[in-house]
Amino acid sequence: MEQTSTLAAAVQKTIDAVFEKQRAALQDLGPDVVPILDQAEQFLRGGKRLRAQFAVAGYRSIASVADPMLDEIPSSVIAAAASLELFHAAALVHDDIIDRSDTRRGAPAVHKWFTHHHLSHSWRSDADAYGVAAAILIGDLLQTWADELFSAALEDLPHEAANAARTHFNRMRTEVAAGQYLDVLEEQLGAIGDEATQLERATRVLVYKSAKYSVEAPLLIGAALAGANADQESIISDFGLPIGVAFQLRDDLLGVFGDEEVTGKPAGDDLREGKQTILVAVSRQHLQTSTRQVFDELLGDSSLDSEQVTMLQRTIQECGAVDIVEQMIEANLARARKTLADSSHKVGALSTLESLADKATRRSF
Amino acid sequence: MEQTSTLAAAVQKTIDAVFEKQRAALQDLGPDVVPILDQAEQFLRGGKRLRAQFAVAGYRSIASVADPMLDEIPSSVIAAAASLELFHAAALVHDDIIDRSDTRRGAPAVHKWFTHHHLSHSWRSDADAYGVAAAILIGDLLQTWADELFSAALEDLPHEAANAARTHFNRMRTEVAAGQYLDVLEEQLGAIGDEATQLERATRVLVYKSAKYSVEAPLLIGAALAGANADQESIISDFGLPIGVAFQLRDDLLGVFGDEEVTGKPAGDDLREGKQTILVAVSRQHLQTSTRQVFDELLGDSSLDSEQVTMLQRTIQECGAVDIVEQMIEANLARARKTLADSSHKVGALSTLESLADKATRRSF
Repeated sequence: MEQTSTLAAAVQKTIDAVFEKQRAALQDLGPDVVPILDQAEQFLRGGKRLRAQFAVAGYRSIASVADPMLDEIPSSVIAAAASLELFHAAALVHDDIIDRSDTRRGAPAVHKWFTHHHLSHSWRSDADAYGVAAAILIGDLLQTWADELFSAALEDLPHEAANAARTHFNRMRTEVAAGQYLDVLEEQLGAIGDEATQLERATRVLVYKSAKYSVEAPLLIGAALAGANADQESIISDFGLPIGVAFQLRDDLLGVFGDEEVTGKPAGDDLREGKQTILVAVSRQHLQTSTRQVFDELLGDSSLDSEQVTMLQRTIQECGAVDIVEQMIEANLARARKTLADSSHKVGALSTLESLADKATRRSF
Repeated sequence: MEQTSTLAAAVQKTIDAVFEKQRAALQDLGPDVVPILDQAEQFLRGGKRLRAQFAVAGYRSIASVADPMLDEIPSSVIAAAASLELFHAAALVHDDIIDRSDTRRGAPAVHKWFTHHHLSHSWRSDADAYGVAAAILIGDLLQTWADELFSAALEDLPHEAANAARTHFNRMRTEVAAGQYLDVLEEQLGAIGDEATQLERATRVLVYKSAKYSVEAPLLIGAALAGANADQESIISDFGLPIGVAFQLRDDLLGVFGDEEVTGKPAGDDLREGKQTILVAVSRQHLQTSTRQVFDELLGDSSLDSEQVTMLQRTIQECGAVDIVEQMIEANLARARKTLADSSHKVGALSTLESLADKATRRSF
């Protein structure tokens, strides 16, 4: 994993430079703005850099066709990859407000940090509202800085490649926000329609909120930066989308069964939020009517205790949904691998793509 | 006002095209995302297009030096100007969550619309949280679309001018979010330090949250698009900043004394929010200690009734603060006019700049 840690260091260096620049830009506003810079920077220290890794892998897969000895990744490509991490941080800061998540990566969510900060100073007015306000603005700033870094990165790249990458970047940003809206909407609607409809609706959220956003789009952005042609982009999509689907299915399993040590979120959080995941849709297909009624009543109850969480976990396990979702993950992985095997003369860096796909869907990193 | 209404129509046409494009881009996500598109588009129909007008005036002031007969404004400049309106809409949608404002332009704020929508469908989960979630995401989408439109506009412009404009655009976005954070912070702190400190802190918020954002930055972006040199940019700043200050001082007066018919916000909203404006800082300087104590207690009390609002209005009026703020507005206008008069050989379109400055600070539009 030498390559991964070198990349992680390069991405971190780029992000450090962004904060150095923005601290200088906000110098005239005085020390009161320092906490928003500090919290944003702190937030950017965590994370798996999954999207940056996929972007660089996408670049490598195309660039290595022309240059099989390709070693060094241009700094502009690293910068574009790092901008995806800034954008992702912006999205997470806002998501944690939206999902009313108190923790992120084992630490207080950004809005919670500012609420605690308010309370510890015994300020006037509402501490929760202050926390939300600060986090909305930090998310806005990170979105701006992501865009600023992405645009700066494109400056050094051929015009056509830059434009193609920007088109993917724009589509990604629009689709993920709309996908997140659909996810929120499903939580309000609960289980609607028949089981087939529920599975279809859960799939739609999964595809737009996560699969495209976390894997396919970063790969496409990287590929575009290397000047991928239409044929190559289509191969990258056919590989990236099923990996993205498998990635999110793994995430759904972790959201219900995951260890807090690994996920950084309290176990059962997805159950309390009432997330209408594919795992939930498959479970409902396999539960008997009476069990399903209890299941539906508990799901989305924010006050679930650990005993109720355990009961829901056992219900999902015993109805066979976990095995089915594991099979779906394997099937998607197989489909992605077949795409690569069939296209090895058109895209390169296959071992990088394969090992990244494994890591993303096994979550061993 | 022929010019203004032609420009407004051109800006609206650009915005219509953005929504047509984004509706097509989100087609595959199905009809559930239509309400976020509809509400965003509806929100963009209102507003004074102040920032677009200043951007185009900035362009005109520089371009007319080389071409005194300049008539038509390039469509890429209109597009850049329209992107400022999209960005502004994004900021307002988020501001209304932050300020817990229920109304905007006489209609429900975006988050309130989605709360009502939730309640009218008797959905499960929390209607207020749903409203906030939808509005956060709409603000994020509008910010993305603003950036997308701005970048597309720059494509057709000379590289150096485009880069200069982007630098101003980036600085504007960072400064306004940080300025908004300072504004929120002041509300938590209330009146701290001595009167001179309060005035200084209120001025800092005014400069970054509003004066630069609403007037100076749009002017500079437009001027950069026309290839302004450093000398011209400095004149535009020296004109734009005092106009921006005067604009916000007028807004502060309207926030306390304004007619709901004109402002689209309930009278006294700024008093209930406890906004630490310059008007408030000047008032505190001129109130006797006992009156000031009552004043400080009432300011920021969200449950103020109309009688208490009237009492606060009268206190602010009678201590002389309104006259002082009116004088500050005039002094800033005079300073801006002098800058223009001294520089008439370096920047053009002076009558456009002057009339726009009058409108922005008299708020007759």
